Amino acid sequence: MNEELEITFEKLSSLFENKKFADLRIAVLDMEPADIALFMEEKLDDKEQLKFFRLLPKELASDVFVEIDTDTQEYLIRAFTDKELKAVVDDMFLDDAVDIIEEMPANVVKRILKNSDPENRKQINELLEYPDDSAGSIMTTEYVSLAENLTVAEAFEKIRKTGLNKETIYTCYVTDKKRKLRGVVTVKTLLLADKESLIKDIMDTNIITVETLEDKEAVAMKFSKYDFLALPVVDKEGCLVGIVTVDDAVDVIQDEATEDIQKMAAILPTEKEYLKQSVFDIWKNRIPWLLLLMVSATFTGLILNTYEASLNMISPVLFACIPMLMDTGGNAGGQASVTVIRSLALGDVEFKDIFKVLWKELRVSILLAISLGAVCFGKLMLLDNLLFGYKDYTAIRCLVVSISLAVTVIMAKLVGCILPLFAKKIKLDPAVVASPFITTIVDALSLLIYCSIAMAILA
Amino acid sequence: MNEELEITFEKLSSLFENKKFADLRIAVLDMEPADIALFMEEKLDDKEQLKFFRLLPKELASDVFVEIDTDTQEYLIRAFTDKELKAVVDDMFLDDAVDIIEEMPANVVKRILKNSDPENRKQINELLEYPDDSAGSIMTTEYVSLAENLTVAEAFEKIRKTGLNKETIYTCYVTDKKRKLRGVVTVKTLLLADKESLIKDIMDTNIITVETLEDKEAVAMKFSKYDFLALPVVDKEGCLVGIVTVDDAVDVIQDEATEDIQKMAAILPTEKEYLKQSVFDIWKNRIPWLLLLMVSATFTGLILNTYEASLNMISPVLFACIPMLMDTGGNAGGQASVTVIRSLALGDVEFKDIFKVLWKELRVSILLAISLGAVCFGKLMLLDNLLFGYKDYTAIRCLVVSISLAVTVIMAKLVGCILPLFAKKIKLDPAVVASPFITTIVDALSLLIYCSIAMAILA
Repeated sequence: MNEELEITFEKLSSLFENKKFADLRIAVLDMEPADIALFMEEKLDDKEQLKFFRLLPKELASDVFVEIDTDTQEYLIRAFTDKELKAVVDDMFLDDAVDIIEEMPANVVKRILKNSDPENRKQINELLEYPDDSAGSIMTTEYVSLAENLTVAEAFEKIRKTGLNKETIYTCYVTDKKRKLRGVVTVKTLLLADKESLIKDIMDTNIITVETLEDKEAVAMKFSKYDFLALPVVDKEGCLVGIVTVDDAVDVIQDEATEDIQKMAAILPTEKEYLKQSVFDIWKNRIPWLLLLMVSATFTGLILNTYEASLNMISPVLFACIPMLMDTGGNAGGQASVTVIRSLALGDVEFKDIFKVLWKELRVSILLAISLGAVCFGKLMLLDNLLFGYKDYTAIRCLVVSISLAVTVIMAKLVGCILPLFAKKIKLDPAVVASPFITTIVDALSLLIYCSIAMAILA
Repeated sequence: MNEELEITFEKLSSLFENKKFADLRIAVLDMEPADIALFMEEKLDDKEQLKFFRLLPKELASDVFVEIDTDTQEYLIRAFTDKELKAVVDDMFLDDAVDIIEEMPANVVKRILKNSDPENRKQINELLEYPDDSAGSIMTTEYVSLAENLTVAEAFEKIRKTGLNKETIYTCYVTDKKRKLRGVVTVKTLLLADKESLIKDIMDTNIITVETLEDKEAVAMKFSKYDFLALPVVDKEGCLVGIVTVDDAVDVIQDEATEDIQKMAAILPTEKEYLKQSVFDIWKNRIPWLLLLMVSATFTGLILNTYEASLNMISPVLFACIPMLMDTGGNAGGQASVTVIRSLALGDVEFKDIFKVLWKELRVSILLAISLGAVCFGKLMLLDNLLFGYKDYTAIRCLVVSISLAVTVIMAKLVGCILPLFAKKIKLDPAVVASPFITTIVDALSLLIYCSIAMAILA
C-alpha cells in the first residue's frame, strides 16, 4: 500500500473515532470505492464496519459493497435491515449482484432475492442458471441497445436517457425486434458521425460475439487478442442476452493465472485470498495431492528396494547421486511441462502441434543432456573425488552417473511436454498433470534408467 | 482456433492463390486485424506475407502490422520501401510503434525512425527513454486533453476534431497551460451533463495517477483494482505526459503471470511464444537453473556420503524411503512458496504480514504433518511390510520414517513461506526463489532431519 493511501486511512480512522461523521462523509466522496473497502477491511472490526457502512453516502454504498471481501459482505447482509439490503442490491450492477450471491449461503441468498426489485430478481435468477465457468456467469444484462433506424441524434438521446445505469455506454448494440444482434456501434463512431446519419449505415456488422455457454477463459482471451472494451453474449439463436465488460475479463485473467499456478504447485485451486482462508481450508486444498504423491512414491521405493543390494555391492557412493539425478530430472521435466501448459492456456499451442513440440523438446533436451552430463562428470571428478576425497568416485562410475543424467533429462523433457498435451486432448486440465505429478513419474523412470545403466556397465 | 475462423482462412487462402485480389481486399475489411495477422502467420510463407500485406487496404495495414509476430515484422520492415515503411509507422499508435521498435535490431530501428514523421519521431524517442518495466514504456501520448473553462458542447467539438487518432476518447484529461493535470472527465459524464456546463464544474478532481517510472506491474494492478479504462501518467511535477489504456494493462497482466510461472519452473523468463523460440534460445533459458540446481545437489550427496555406512548398517530399506521423503518435502515447500509468491504478486500479502503468514503456515503444516505421518506409517506397515513382504520395515523403523516425514513437512512449509517474503524484502524477485530452489534447500534439510532422527532412535 502506498503512503498517500496510508495517510488517507489515518485521517478516516481519526474522523471515525472522533465521531466527526459529517466530515467523514465528505472525505469518502473523494475516494475510490475499492479504497474505501480496503479501509474497512484493514482498519475496522465487524461492528465498526457496519456502523461505517451506514454512514456512507447513498450513491457510494453499493459501489463500496461490491468491493468488500465475501466474509464481510455476508456479515453486513445479515446485519442489514430489509430496507438497507434492498437499497444496496437494487443499486448494484446485475453481474456484481450475481457474483456476490454465488458466494453466499442459501438463507442469505433467499433474503437477498426477496429484497430485490422483481425485475432485477428475474434477471438475477436467469444469470444464476449459467454454469460457473461460462460467459453467462460473468455477463451483465445492463447494456445500451439501439434500433437500426434511429438517427445518431436520436441514439444520443436514448443513451442520455438510459445510460446512467448501464455498465458501459461506449459500445452500443443494435438489435431488431426479436433481440437478434444486427450490429455494434461505438460512441466514438457516433461522435464522429453526422447527426442525421442512420445507425444502420454507420454500425459495424462484422461482430465478434461469444456464446452464453462458452468458457469464460476463452472469453477473456478474446479480450486480450482483440483489445475490446466489451463483448456481446448471444444465445444459440443469435439473440443478444448480455455483455461482458473488460473489467470482468481482467478478473478472469488474474483468477485463471492464479488457479493454474496453484494447480502446478499441487494445490486445489481456490479464488479466496490466502490470508482470508482458514487453516482448515488451506489444509483441505493441500493434503490431497501431497497424499497422492506420497503414496505414489511407493514405486521409487520398490525400485530402490530391488536394486539396493546390487548397487551397494558395487559402491555405496552410487546411492549418493540419486537425489541429484531425481531432482534434475524433475526440474527438467517441470520446465517442459510448465512451458507447454502455459502455451496451451494462452492459445499459442494446440494438440495438433504435438509433433512440433516433440521435435523442439527433443533437440533442446539433447543440448541440455550434453551440457549437464559434461558438467556433472567434471563436478564428480573434481569436486567429489579430488576436493572432498571420495575416491570411490572412479572415472567409470562418474561416467555412469553422467550418462544416466543425460538420458534422464531427455526422458523428462519428453514426458513433460507430452503429458499436458494428452491431458488437454482428453479434456483434462493440463495444469493438474504439471510439475509434481510429472516429478513422480520422472523420479521412478530416472531411478530405473540409473539402476539399469549402472548394472549394465558396472556389474 | 474455432471453425468459423478456419473457414474464413480457407476462403482467404483460395482468393489469394487464385489472385482474386479485389475480392480479397473486400473480404479482409470484415475481419479483425488480429485475425488477419493470424492468417498471415499460419498460412503464408515470408514472400507471400509481404505480397499479402501489400494488398491490404491502407486503413487496415498498420492495425494488422502491430498484431504480427516480431520476426515477421522485422522481415517486412526490411522488405518495405521507405514510403511503405513511413505509411505504416505514421499510422500506428505511438505506444505500439515503441513496442515494435524495442524488439528490433539497431539498424532496423534507425530505418524506422528515419522514416517517421518528425513530430512522431521526437515522441517515440522520448518514450524509448523509459526503462523497460516502467509505466512510461507502456504509455501513449495520444490522449484527449481539455481546458477547464470549456463548455460541454465545446468539449464535444474538440473531441470530434481531434479524437480520430487518439487511443481512447472515453476518458478526457483536463490540464492547465503548464500541462498540470487538474481533473478527469469521461464521455459518459459529458453525455449526461448539460451542454452549457463548464468542464471544471463537472470534472472529477480526485484522480488516481501513476508516475512515469512506476513499475508496470503495479500499474496493471491498479486497473484490476479500480476497473478503469485508462490511467493518466504524470511526471514528478504532476504534469500529464501520457496515458496507459486497459488493453496494455491486460497484456502486462498476461505477460507477468507467464513470467512468474516460468520463474517458478526454474526457467529464465521470456515474452516470446514457445513455438517461435529457437532451440538455442530455449536451451539458453533453461540451462542456468538446471546447472545451478544440479551442482547445489552436491550437498545432498555429501550428507548421504556421511550417513551412508551407518544407515546401511541399520537396514538398507532406510535408503528406499529417501525419495519419498524428499519429494514430499519438496511438494509441501512448493505449495507454501507458490502461495506466498502469488499473493505477493497480487498485493494480498506484504512483508509486514510475515508473522501472520508464519503462524498460518505453522498451523497448516502441523495438520498436514499429522495426516501425512499417519498415512505414511500405515502405508509402510500395510503395503510395504505386509503386502510386498519387506519385513525389514519394522514398526520402529516405520515410525522413524513417519516422524521424519512430519518434521520435514513442517520445516518445508516454513522455509517455503519465509524465503519469498525475504526475497521481496531485499528487492529480489520472489518468484525466482520458488519451488526448484526451495526444493534443493528442503532436500538437504530433510535428509539431515531423516538421518539424525534415524541415528538417534535406531543406532
